[in-house]
Formats: sequence, C-alpha cells, structure tokens
Amino acid sequence: MHISKLTSTEAHLPFARWHGLPLESVRLSAGFWAAWQDTNRRVTLPHGLQMLEQAGTLDNFRVAAGFKDAPYRGAMTFHDSDVYKWLEAVAYELQANPDPVLRQQADEVIDLVAAAQQPDGYLNTYYQLVEPQSRWSDLDFGHELYCAGHLFEAAAAYTRATGTTRLLDVATRFADLLDATFGPGKREATSGHPVVELALVKLYRATGNARYLDLARFFVDVRGRGVMRGLGWLKSEYHQDRVPVREQDIVEGHAVRAMYLNAGVTDLYLETGEAALLAAMQRQWRDMTGGKMFVTGGLGSQYEGEAFGDAYELPSDQCYCETCAAIGNVFWNWRMLLATGEARFADLIERALFNGVLSGLSAAGDSFFYINPLLSRGGYARQPWYEVACCPPNLMRLLASLPQYFMSHDDGGLQVHLYGTGTAQLALESGQPLTLSMQTDYPWDGKIELRIDEADGSRWALRLRRPGWCTGAAVTVNGQPVDAPAVEAGYIVLDRAWQPGDVVQLDLPMEPTLVEAHPRVDAVRDSVSIQRGPVVYCVEEADHPGVNVMDLRLDENAPLRAVWREGLVGRGAMVVEASGAVADLSAWDGLLYRRAGKRGDLPLRPITLVAIPYHAWANRGANAMRVWIPRA
Amino acid sequence: MHISKLTSTEAHLPFARWHGLPLESVRLSAGFWAAWQDTNRRVTLPHGLQMLEQAGTLDNFRVAAGFKDAPYRGAMTFHDSDVYKWLEAVAYELQANPDPVLRQQADEVIDLVAAAQQPDGYLNTYYQLVEPQSRWSDLDFGHELYCAGHLFEAAAAYTRATGTTRLLDVATRFADLLDATFGPGKREATSGHPVVELALVKLYRATGNARYLDLARFFVDVRGRGVMRGLGWLKSEYHQDRVPVREQDIVEGHAVRAMYLNAGVTDLYLETGEAALLAAMQRQWRDMTGGKMFVTGGLGSQYEGEAFGDAYELPSDQCYCETCAAIGNVFWNWRMLLATGEARFADLIERALFNGVLSGLSAAGDSFFYINPLLSRGGYARQPWYEVACCPPNLMRLLASLPQYFMSHDDGGLQVHLYGTGTAQLALESGQPLTLSMQTDYPWDGKIELRIDEADGSRWALRLRRPGWCTGAAVTVNGQPVDAPAVEAGYIVLDRAWQPGDVVQLDLPMEPTLVEAHPRVDAVRDSVSIQRGPVVYCVEEADHPGVNVMDLRLDENAPLRAVWREGLVGRGAMVVEASGAVADLSAWDGLLYRRAGKRGDLPLRPITLVAIPYHAWANRGANAMRVWIPRA
Repeated sequence: MHISKLTSTEAHLPFARWHGLPLESVRLSAGFWAAWQDTNRRVTLPHGLQMLEQAGTLDNFRVAAGFKDAPYRGAMTFHDSDVYKWLEAVAYELQANPDPVLRQQADEVIDLVAAAQQPDGYLNTYYQLVEPQSRWSDLDFGHELYCAGHLFEAAAAYTRATGTTRLLDVATRFADLLDATFGPGKREATSGHPVVELALVKLYRATGNARYLDLARFFVDVRGRGVMRGLGWLKSEYHQDRVPVREQDIVEGHAVRAMYLNAGVTDLYLETGEAALLAAMQRQWRDMTGGKMFVTGGLGSQYEGEAFGDAYELPSDQCYCETCAAIGNVFWNWRMLLATGEARFADLIERALFNGVLSGLSAAGDSFFYINPLLSRGGYARQPWYEVACCPPNLMRLLASLPQYFMSHDDGGLQVHLYGTGTAQLALESGQPLTLSMQTDYPWDGKIELRIDEADGSRWALRLRRPGWCTGAAVTVNGQPVDAPAVEAGYIVLDRAWQPGDVVQLDLPMEPTLVEAHPRVDAVRDSVSIQRGPVVYCVEEADHPGVNVMDLRLDENAPLRAVWREGLVGRGAMVVEASGAVADLSAWDGLLYRRAGKRGDLPLRPITLVAIPYHAWANRGANAMRVWIPRA
Repeated sequence: MHISKLTSTEAHLPFARWHGLPLESVRLSAGFWAAWQDTNRRVTLPHGLQMLEQAGTLDNFRVAAGFKDAPYRGAMTFHDSDVYKWLEAVAYELQANPDPVLRQQADEVIDLVAAAQQPDGYLNTYYQLVEPQSRWSDLDFGHELYCAGHLFEAAAAYTRATGTTRLLDVATRFADLLDATFGPGKREATSGHPVVELALVKLYRATGNARYLDLARFFVDVRGRGVMRGLGWLKSEYHQDRVPVREQDIVEGHAVRAMYLNAGVTDLYLETGEAALLAAMQRQWRDMTGGKMFVTGGLGSQYEGEAFGDAYELPSDQCYCETCAAIGNVFWNWRMLLATGEARFADLIERALFNGVLSGLSAAGDSFFYINPLLSRGGYARQPWYEVACCPPNLMRLLASLPQYFMSHDDGGLQVHLYGTGTAQLALESGQPLTLSMQTDYPWDGKIELRIDEADGSRWALRLRRPGWCTGAAVTVNGQPVDAPAVEAGYIVLDRAWQPGDVVQLDLPMEPTLVEAHPRVDAVRDSVSIQRGPVVYCVEEADHPGVNVMDLRLDENAPLRAVWREGLVGRGAMVVEASGAVADLSAWDGLLYRRAGKRGDLPLRPITLVAIPYHAWANRGANAMRVWIPRA
C-alpha cells in the first residue's frame, strides 16, 4: 500500500522509518482528547489572545511598527515568542476547522508582526525597542534566535493551513538575515535557548530552501565548543554547550532547551541520515529514561537552572517539571519514533501527554501550571498567565496539533500510536481513498475498535501500538481472535488485504496497578504510585477531607478498584479506590527528630484512598496532593 | 555570688535572664574547638585576607578612597561586608590573642575603610563607585544597610578588642547619617537583608547612644507593612515583609535574613522587655524546630529564594542549608538563651555548631561550603572563595568568638552551656578572682571535669547543661555522686559554697544512637541517621569503596560501635561502625519504573557501614555522602 506522498507533509523525510500524516487527515471527534481540543478551541485560544493583549505582548509589536508610542512591556527579552506560538496554534486549528473569526484575528496579528519587521529582515521587539544597539550581543541569554525559531514554526504552519505567505515572507526575510549573519566564516555562534534548529528545518521543508537546513546544521555543529558564557552558577551544560552534540552521552542542563535541541538534532538526522546524530540521541534517551524522568513524563529535577539533575534525582516536591519540558519530550520522541519505528518512543509520548503535559492546563482551559510538582503540601494553584508565558501557548499549539501524533505511515502500511475516537482519511496511490474510524473510551477503557470504511482491497500492514504499560493485549479481526499476533518493536502487526467493513478490535486490559521506582530514586523510597492504562494517579486533599495527604499510606496487598466518577473536574474521570491508612502522629506532637523506634511502629487507621488522575489535580482548589504514596 | 558587672560586656542587658561573659575571660586551650580555633587563626584568617585582595574587595575601598583608579570589582553590591566580617573576626582574635602582625594588617584595612568614607558619613563602595546617584534607591535588594550593619558589628568588636576608636568613629558617623535619614517622619523604610538591627543594638551598647537603639527598633517596626517590592517569584515573605514582626507566627523566606532579623528582634527584647517581641520569637522558634530545621541545625529547604520551605519540607539533596543560616541559627539562639535561661536554645546552638556550621569549613581551613546538603551523589566540593563570599568570613568571626557561647552568668551563679577543655577567669564582686578549668575530650567523650581553681568560698549555683540528646547524665562533686540532682530548664543545678580545689565530674553517656524524623518529613521516609552525642554522622563514599552510597542500608537492630579513627581528616575523629547492607540492583538494569514488587523484595548483601561525622565529609575528595540511611 502506498499512501500518496502528496498528502503527507513529512513524507519527504529521506531517513524516516515512518512518516507523519497531514494534520487535517486525522480528526478526533469524541472522547477524551476531542474534549480537550474543544476546550482549547473555545476557551484557551481566545484566553491566550486576551492575555497577550493584557500583558502588552501585542502592543510591543504595535510600538515596533510605529503604530503606537509606548515603552516595551514585560521584563523579558522573549515575549514575542508567545505571540508566535499562539499563531502556530491558530494555524493548526484553522487547518482542521477553518473559522473566519479566528482567521481574522490571526491575520491582524500577522499584520502587526509584518509591520514590526525591520527593512533588513530583523525582528525582535525587545531589541528594537529597548536595546537597538545590542542586536546579537547576547546570544546566550537574549533569545533573539529563539524568537526567530518560533516565528519560523508559526510561519510554516500558517502557510500550510491557509495558503497565504504573508507570515512566511516575514520568516524567510528574517531567516535570510540569519543566513547572512551566522555560519562558517561568518559569526560562529548559536542560541543559548535552542528552537531555531528545528524551526529552520521546518522552514526548509516549507520552502525547499536548503540554506535553511544548512544553517540549522551549523547551529547544531557549533555547540559544545565553549561558544557560550555561563551566568553565575549556570555553566556550559545549562545551555548544552559542554560537549559537541555528537559526543554528548547524557541529558543535562535546562530541560526545555535540551528537548528542543534534541528535536532539532533528530530532525537533522531525518534529513541527513548521519548515524552519529542518531546514536547521540539514543544515548541521551537511555540516560533520560533510565534515571532522569518523572513517572509523569515530566522533566527537570532542579529549580536551579530549570535543569535535569543527577541520575535518580527525582524529587516529588522540588521537581521542576516545566510544562514546556514535557511538551518538548513529546516533540523529541515523535521525531525519534519516525526515525526508528519503535514503540518505546510512542509510549513516552503517551506518558507525557496524559500526565506531565496535561497537568499544565486547568480543566476549564484558562489557567496554567508552569511547574508541575508530583507532591504539593497545598497552596499551589494554576495561574491565568505568567510573566514568562512560554507554557500556555505551548499547550495551545500541542493540543491543536494533537491528531498528528496518532498515526503515521510507511510504504508498507499504517501505524496507530495513540488511541481515541475519530477518523483518518487518506489517499492511496491507487487513487482510491482509505478511510478508517476508531471508536474507544480510551484512556478510561482499553477496548478500541477500528473500522475500515473505505479501502482499495490491497494488502498492507496495520500496526497497533501495544503500550508498554499493558500486558495481555488481545486483538480480533472481524470478530476472529488473532492468536499470538506478530509484534514488532512494540507494535502488533496485522498484515492483510483490507476491505471496507473490516473491523479490528483491540483490547488492552486496563487494571489499576501499583508502580515502583528504581531503588536509587531516594525521593520515593518505600512508596508506590497508582497507574491505570497510561494515566498516572494521585491522591488529593479534596477527596480526603480532614486528612493530611502526607499521612496517607497504601496497602500494597489490597485490591484496587476503578470507579467512574461522573462530573469529576467537569468531564468525569475514572478514579481508583484502594485500601489505605492514615498515620496517627499524636506521639510526635512538637517533635521533629527523636531516637528511632522500630520500623512500622507508627499506628495506622484504615481509610479508603481515592486516587484521581494526576492531570486533574488542583481543579478543586489549591489542594495538597501526592503521586507517590508510602506503603502501609 | 555576684560577678562584677564591669567584667561582662553583656551584663547590662536589662531583660536578660542570663548574661554573657567577656570573650577574653573564657579560653579554649585544647581539644576539639581549640584545634578549630587554631586553624582559624593560622590558616583561615590569613586565607581570607588573601582572598579579599584577590577578589578586589579591598581594592574597592582603595578606589573609593581615591588611592587607586580602577573599576568596581565583583558582581554584587555587598562585597564590602566581607571586609567588615573579616575585621570583626580579627577583633575577636586580637581580644584573646593580641598579635602585632594581625593587628597591623587590620589597622591598614581600617585605614582604607576610613579613607573611603564620604564626608557625610556614607560608606558603600558599590554605590560610591558604580551608582553614585542611586544611594538608598534600592533598599530591598541593594544591601546598603546590610553592609552598614556589618561595619557596626566590626567596629564594636574592634574597639572592645583594641581600645582604639578609629573604626568606631567611621561607624558612628555612618550610623548618624542613617539616623538622620531613616525613622518616623523621615524615610520610612528598611533593609531587604536584615543585620543592621542587631548591629545598631551592638553600636548602642558600645557607645551608650540610645538613638541607635531607637533606630534599630524603627527598622524592626516598619517591616511587614509592604514596604518592600518583590522580585519575580520572590514575594514579601522573602525578606520578612509579609506581616509585622509582632504578628509573625512562622519562619519563612530567606533563611539567613530571617535568622539575622530574629537575632535583632531578640536583642530589642533584651533591651526593652517588650513581651510581644519575645512571644513572636517563641512562636517562630516552635515553627522552625517543629518542622523546618535539618537534623544538622541547617536551615533553608529551597534554592529558590534560599528560603525556608513548608513544614516538613526538608530534602536531603536539594536543601540549601547555607552556612550563614546555620551561623544565624547560633546567633539567634544565643540571644534566646540569654532571654529565657532554657537549655533547648543551647541544645540548638550545639547542634548547629558541630554539624551544619562546621561542615561549611574544610579540615584544612582554606575552603568553604556555601550550601550544605545532607546527601550528595558526588562531585560537590568546597571552594576557596565565592562570588558571594558571605559564608567564609562568617565562619571566621564565629570561630574566633566561640568561647563566648560556652558560659554565662547571673546574680546567682554560672551556667555552662558547651563543653570543652579550657579555663574561665572571672572577677567576683568580692574582689576575689573566680577561676575554673574544664577538662574533657568532648565531643568524642562525654566525661567532663570542672575544677574550681580560685573562689571566695561564697555560695552560688553552677548550672551544667544536660544536653537534649543525653539520657542518664551522672554528676559527682569531689568524687561523691549527686543523686537525682536538681534540674531546671535542662540544667543540672549544683548550688553550694564553692571552694578552691572542688571538682565536679559530669558524665554524659555518649552511645551512638539512631535518630528518625517526623513521619511527615517525606524526604527521609523509612530512614535513620546516626548520632553520637551532639555529632551527626554520615556515610561517605571514601569509606565504602566500590559501593554507591545510595545503595547502602542500615539494620536498625544491629549494634553501633564507636571507634577512634586516628588521623581522619587531620585531627582524628570517632567513627561509628554498624551492620548494614548493600542493595543488589541487578534486577533493575535499565529500568526506572516498573510494576511494584513486594516491599522488601530487594536482595541485600551484608556490609559493615562506617559513618563519619557529617562535618568531616568532603575532605577526601568530592565523595558521595548521605546523612539519612534507609533501613535495611
């Protein structure tokens, strides 16, 4: 089976094992993610535009364009990027659901952006308004190339969605200036905060201009040679400048920067096939998933530098887990998935999406976490916006583009990575349409039905990801069990001639289970977390009135019960009940340290624990919460 | 018994329960602290002067004085304070051991300081050299009053030590300028970083000028009324400006700032007897010791804002525990001890000194920790100096002044708070001398012998602190056991007519014990630490070659053995050996999370653990280390 390359934006990647599908070809029509997409469309995107106005972020463009006379607003150099990410989100939204009002709003913003651009192509309202003499003077911390990157991403997406090139023209003018400024024999430097690398690859794909790909490669190659200065305790590893990319064995430094850079490096591999790049990515991936990733898919163990920590340094309360880092985790792993065709990367995308990404957004869609701890003693709440507002529009663009992560294709067939109710409409090289529909209550239920609605009868392989969390997956085709189906790299392979009306039923048993962490993860010693399917659970104060969640204990031997809780944080959710206990601390009154008693001498009172999805916490007030629960 | 008030610098405090002794009246002649004082004298103080030259901190005064033309050195506004703290340390040293070379060095530095002072009394080399138009423009973060405070402390100490008033004249000129600038109806503001409060009280005591006391009170009273702005995520509690001091119930914000402020507030109580001040201090003390203090006496749970955290938020690895905070803990508790006469405050002084303070200094005396974690995965080492070099000279002044914390007096007798080999020479109101000598190998041994060498035969009470860590203290007088001695507020009271030749023997049984933390201290769940006497122990990589200290486990039931280790980190130390185990992690190869097994299913291999004093760690390389050891 050959899906027409013309329909796939990423079909041209020469070294991809699998290829992405056009965003508009996959639609989520109902269920979990469709509801979040709907919230994003109705609430989050309009809220974002309002906040960009309130914060003065749009005014900065008006002032730079000469439409208004006012000082630069905001304390940071990189507020422009918030506008670009909002535009990118709108582009994905328009691609799936053209909406004249939204289109009009975006076009007006694009007019501002275009008007603010300087004649030579330069565009950064902070430097234009505040430090016009300091252009390119602080690449390490000034974020000019970072803002440029987000502009390029938005432009590529907007052009694809609308066919207009107004923003793309802005982007290529700026990119041409970068190309004239940076490179071998020119200015040999790069950005302290990566994103321009992956963005230039996108711009290359959107325009076919290979100079952008070359520049992306240059920005990668120049790193790790001491081109950046530190700042106080932030050393070279903070911005991935300690060793050259091809020699890097570990993830370190600022987590978002690391993820964005790795996404760009993997993009370079997908374009060039340079084995050393992929090998370095594989080493970093092993290092990250072997000791530097939270169970939620969150990344960043330290406030200091918003950084990865040592291996196994994964504190529940003082973790950073910036929403953008979990999103960056998705970006990087998507590219690794395309490069390798291995389910472990899709597993990680799923882990991050359902947990460490989604926790960043309130159920109502109008407030955000920047930091996503796995334990709160109370008092921590989402905010409508931030002085550093990178996370909110990052969530918007991820949710708007979410369908692209559900499926991919290669010459031999289709791969399904994520599960949700919706449809895929593709064009086969035969000229015939291929349409599939998927029906499921995932992640609350593990039964998934795929139906072939249109097909040309040719033989091709349908690959269904068997999630890493799942044991005992069962599959039927047209009601007939497939015994011991072939499994390759974590995907169940159904290779046959598909006919309209064919139905595949996949059953992923979804019992609540207890998960434990590597014994060197000191922070969660003697504790377990509850997981059900891809969803990580937590216990929250709201479900245990009068009890301090720090005193809760979980009986590792007692059964766990999944119970549907109608209306929980709006949409309803599966909660997990468990036999637990509350520690009686009366003997400790006023004491902080004492001569040690025997292990287990703390009196416990039985209680039923109620665990809710981690992503749903802090929607009923700034409750205390914990993911990891000490064993009773 | 009445000790002549003339001999006591702090005898005049009208609301002190107990009074300090003149620094020079108590001398440590041998043993643990005498060795550290000797290192301070021979190594640390000269090293400090050298570093102040290298860092340009002294040059800043030369430039401000017009002796040199150069830019301001250092990235901070408060480097001047390092010079003042070094001078204060030298003053204490000179008071005990007049040394012409050291005196000459200090006098030359004082000449620079005096020459740098502006005609109106203002003195701050940063503002003079870098922002001369910005004087007093940033009290929240600019540290002008903080530097002034350290100048005042140094001046009071130097004048007392040498009888010269050159530095005191500089201080009072500056203080008079402050008095003319700040106060009710004048500029109603205060310093973001406290210390000027306690320093003005010292200046009042040194000069008798009550305006300095009034100004100290003003700087305290004005707090907590929103006089300070925040900075990013640093809110009003960061610099103790959330509520007025008298309404404050908890310790919060920047730990060093909180300790310095509380020391100043307690000084105000000691001068004024205002009950509301002492009550607020008692509340804060309960909050701190009930949930916000590390077992080492270290303070500050968060890198963000170098701040106290929530109650029971006491991470071993990501704690801050700035050396200055532990020193501030000593400062505050000494004043609380004088105010109340309760041993719990002296217990805390001892806990901080032997552990969280002393860990800040290398055994060789020439490198320092700024942050003192209770767990290191390796790679963390003391530095010869810091860009923010507050901690090194703070250690110098504390060690040089250490004898002042050993004893106090009141009209009824003498109190012994700390134990070490040395002598006390006092003058009684009878005109007769009172001299005592103390002989002990404390903290390695709990046997202490006190001998009355000279006395006038009058009756008075000798109070000996019975440490909170001790059970079964025994005491003899002239070889006769004192059965069930009176104990008041943690002090054994021996009230009798003392004659020359009387000998008191105190035996504080010093068995190694296991300590556990309150169950809400999530970070040390299911773990114990080893303590022997006042010394907190840790396990360090150097004593467990080939073993990751993260894999060590301790059998809570096995005996602990104290063993003298000759030469350990130079001076020798008592180590503690214990039956422990190493976890076998082979089943976890490559895994970070997995379906939970049964508790205790991790294979363990027996090993003998060797624990060394926490303060001695990181003297054999940047070893991995942990204080809290999981139970086997």
